[in-house]
Amino acid sequence: MAKERIILGVDPGTTIMGFGVIRVIGNSPELVCLDVVKMTKLSDHFLKLQTIFERTIRIIDEFHPDEMAVEAPFFGKNVQSMLKLGRAQGVIMAAALSRGIPVMEYSPKRVKQSITGNGNASKEQVAGMLKTIYTFKTAPKYLDATDGLAVATCHYFQGELPVNEGVEKKKSAKKSSSWESFLKNNPDRLG
Amino acid sequence: MAKERIILGVDPGTTIMGFGVIRVIGNSPELVCLDVVKMTKLSDHFLKLQTIFERTIRIIDEFHPDEMAVEAPFFGKNVQSMLKLGRAQGVIMAAALSRGIPVMEYSPKRVKQSITGNGNASKEQVAGMLKTIYTFKTAPKYLDATDGLAVATCHYFQGELPVNEGVEKKKSAKKSSSWESFLKNNPDRLG
Repeated sequence: MAKERIILGVDPGTTIMGFGVIRVIGNSPELVCLDVVKMTKLSDHFLKLQTIFERTIRIIDEFHPDEMAVEAPFFGKNVQSMLKLGRAQGVIMAAALSRGIPVMEYSPKRVKQSITGNGNASKEQVAGMLKTIYTFKTAPKYLDATDGLAVATCHYFQGELPVNEGVEKKKSAKKSSSWESFLKNNPDRLG
Repeated sequence: MAKERIILGVDPGTTIMGFGVIRVIGNSPELVCLDVVKMTKLSDHFLKLQTIFERTIRIIDEFHPDEMAVEAPFFGKNVQSMLKLGRAQGVIMAAALSRGIPVMEYSPKRVKQSITGNGNASKEQVAGMLKTIYTFKTAPKYLDATDGLAVATCHYFQGELPVNEGVEKKKSAKKSSSWESFLKNNPDRLG
C-alpha cells in the first residue's frame, strides 16, 4: 500500500490567509480542504498575527499535515508592508515548528511555473489548472484559497526536502519536477 | 507581600538576538538574566528562525515570564532586510503566543527615551543607565543583551498593557511613565 502524505499549503496574507490541504497517495494528489482565514475586521496588526498563529495551529491539529509549504515573496513594494508580511510568515512558520512540522518555502514565480508551466501566469490561470488537477465542483470564493492550494501542489510536484530537514540536501532533492511529469503519470486527470 | 512580576525583553536580530529578564517586586526591578543567542554560524535564514523559536521557547520555559516586551523597529534600510527582521519578530511573538504570554512591542526611540530621557541616545548611553539601575558588576560582551534588557525595563517603566490583552485599553494604560518617576520612587538606586 502506498504511503499517504498530507501537505498543507499556505499563502500568508495579513488580511486574508489562504490555505489548501492535499492528500497524496502514490502519484495521486487529492483535495482535502481549501479555505481562507479572513482578518478584514481586525484593525490591529498584532491581533491579526495572533489570529494567524491560532488558526494555523488549529488547521495543523485538524489535518495533521506531514509537511507545510509556504508561499514566500522576497520583495515587495515598501519596507512597512514587507515587515508586516515577514511577521505573518514568521508566525506561520513558528506554528509549524511548534508542532514539529517541516516547512518549505516557494516564491510565487516558482509556484506558477510549477503548476502552469509559466512563471508569470495569472492567479486565474493557476486556479484554472488546479480545478483540472483536483476537479473542483465550484470555484472557491477567494483566490487566496487557491494560492494556498497552489503552493501545496507545487511542493508535491517539486518533491523537495523541507528547509529545516537538512539544508545541504536541498539542491539534489528535486525528484518529480512539474505539472508535465504529473500529467504523464496521470493522463486520466485531464478529463 | 508585593506581587512578583517577571518581564522578558527581547531585541530580535537575525544574527544576534539579545534578551534580558527582570523580576519586579513592588517598585523594585532586579536583573535575573542578561544574555544573547548567537546565530553567526548559521548561514541559512530558516535555520536562524528555527533557532530563534526554539531558544525563545527555552528562555520562556526557564524563567516563566508574565509578559514579553519586544523591540520592534518599523522602518529599515531595504525590503529584504525588513522581511527577514519581520520573520524573526513573528517567530519570537509566536513563541510567546504558544506559551500564552502577552506581548508588547516598543520602538527603539521609545525604549531609549524611557531609559535615558533621550530618544536619540546611543546604545552605550542606554547600557550605562542600565548599569546604574541594575548595578551590574561587569558589562555584558554584546550590547544586544542590554538592548533586550532595555526593552524589558522600558515595559516596566511604561506600565502598558500587552497588545494582545485589549487593544482598546492601551491608550489609557500609561501608569508609570519614565526613568524620572522611577528615580523619584527609588532615590537610593543612583549610588
